[in-house]
Amino acid sequence: MLEDEAKPDDIRFRWRVRVYWEDTDAGGVVFYANYLKFFERGRTEWLRALGVEQQTLRDDTGAIFVVTDTAVQYKQPARLDDVVEVTVRVVETGNARLTIDQQAFRVHPDGATNSPAGPLLASGRIRIACVDAGTFRPRRIPTDILERLITP
Amino acid sequence: MLEDEAKPDDIRFRWRVRVYWEDTDAGGVVFYANYLKFFERGRTEWLRALGVEQQTLRDDTGAIFVVTDTAVQYKQPARLDDVVEVTVRVVETGNARLTIDQQAFRVHPDGATNSPAGPLLASGRIRIACVDAGTFRPRRIPTDILERLITP
Amino acid sequence: MLEDEAKPDDIRFRWRVRVYWEDTDAGGVVFYANYLKFFERGRTEWLRALGVEQQTLRDDTGAIFVVTDTAVQYKQPARLDDVVEVTVRVVETGNARLTIDQQAFRVHPDGATNSPAGPLLASGRIRIACVDAGTFRPRRIPTDILERLITP
Amino acid sequence: MLEDEAKPDDIRFRWRVRVYWEDTDAGGVVFYANYLKFFERGRTEWLRALGVEQQTLRDDTGAIFVVTDTAVQYKQPARLDDVVEVTVRVVETGNARLTIDQQAFRVHPDGATNSPAGPLLASGRIRIACVDAGTFRPRRIPTDILERLITP
Repeated sequence: MLEDEAKPDDIRFRWRVRVYWEDTDAGGVVFYANYLKFFERGRTEWLRALGVEQQTLRDDTGAIFVVTDTAVQYKQPARLDDVVEVTVRVVETGNARLTIDQQAFRVHPDGATNSPAGPLLASGRIRIACVDAGTFRPRRIPTDILERLITP
Repeated sequence: MLEDEAKPDDIRFRWRVRVYWEDTDAGGVVFYANYLKFFERGRTEWLRALGVEQQTLRDDTGAIFVVTDTAVQYKQPARLDDVVEVTVRVVETGNARLTIDQQAFRVHPDGATNSPAGPLLASGRIRIACVDAGTFRPRRIPTDILERLITP
Repeated sequence: MLEDEAKPDDIRFRWRVRVYWEDTDAGGVVFYANYLKFFERGRTEWLRALGVEQQTLRDDTGAIFVVTDTAVQYKQPARLDDVVEVTVRVVETGNARLTIDQQAFRVHPDGATNSPAGPLLASGRIRIACVDAGTFRPRRIPTDILERLITP
Repeated sequence: MLEDEAKPDDIRFRWRVRVYWEDTDAGGVVFYANYLKFFERGRTEWLRALGVEQQTLRDDTGAIFVVTDTAVQYKQPARLDDVVEVTVRVVETGNARLTIDQQAFRVHPDGATNSPAGPLLASGRIRIACVDAGTFRPRRIPTDILERLITP
């Protein structure tokens, strides 16, 4: 399954990050490469919410998730002190791979936790593979984890 | 006033950060330079808790805080998925300068929010100056802000 | 013009970077987001070789180049101490936009400057826009610069 | 031996780095924490010039160098496109430890390789320990390497 059009209820997870000095560049805005970090924090917290701690996964099974493809469009700049909401939506799953669509929105300053998000800052599609931590060879995602990832 | 010995009740603020892949290096632990980022997130959130938003400060007054000295001892490594608690303790204030002691502790995995912190990871003394954002020349910290910073 | 197939003589520029601790993560390899930094260093040095210093461009004209799209495939990991060669190939130019294909190769350890590159580590397509540094609104690339960018 | 006063001929090594967008923050200057990266690049290249590749050291002996203390004073800001010269001066050596003083200067734009450096940007003292890569326990610096490090 691979769908380009997201329905709001496809969003699996939302995570908020704050913009600090470390995230900005001399243009006065968030350095574009850092959206990959924001997206990854969102995916990591999504996995954690599903009970998957990556360090534990590695210690127990020798498997790690690695990023194999990133495609990101940068729409609007974010600035120091902004709150950014990152979304996670699974668009495709395989035995050893995942495709995840993610977006970053600026949260309205008066934004209560449940308020609608503000303007879209960046949008991306990230592909992940499960590999052996030692050899980087592909391996199957452990079954119990895969089941958690694909359950709506 | 400048004291080397901290009493627990001198801690002004605590802030928790999570260790992500972006924070680690090939030694398998948090890259030492990143503790400066963790410390800064702690100071930024301390200022915010006092009502000081740095972007607003700059827009309204043309002043920014810059770091002029950092001294950090790295005690124990932190790893992926660790939760790190950062403390903020003001040890000296001047008209245009602040000296702040900060520590980073690993939080016990079973740590409730109020649980005692785990082992000390890093300890630092950071000096901050208030400067003009355009010229980087020193200037007085706005009085209403200085009052908030030094009130116990 | 937009071509997917690169001919070797389309490569406009090559730039070598070294992998340091700061570039790696706990997987023991270069953190994937850092290839965006490596690619940008390559583009910056390509511009410099054409006589375009970005700080001077901004001071003189108020224009900056910003990244609007990045699509990167990560093929093989790079490790500490590796030398990485970054290529720059212009695939499309407009009045206010550029599309650039870039690759990162590991350089053979015995590699003389002119030796063939080693395995492909990452491959990307980066879109750049010329914008006003204050408003981030699109503006035409200064004519004398555009001419230098598109001259084979 | 521990000397606070450096003589010019104590400088063991010089290394130049370029300031890119990735190094800057919204203050328009190099983010202070990044001087630790610049200093480390200098130390890494100094070791390499002495024949010590850190990945090879780890593969062959299981030892890595870790940073245990950093003290840095930030004097003047550096900006995009600046060339920064980093110096390395050994001030103390032990069986398992090294203390290194480092400085970062802006290089005059017209600077030939041998021209005198421009203004001092940052100055630091960095302590390094040799540890086992697996346990992070201190271990002796391999003798043949220690000899190379302390030979004037």
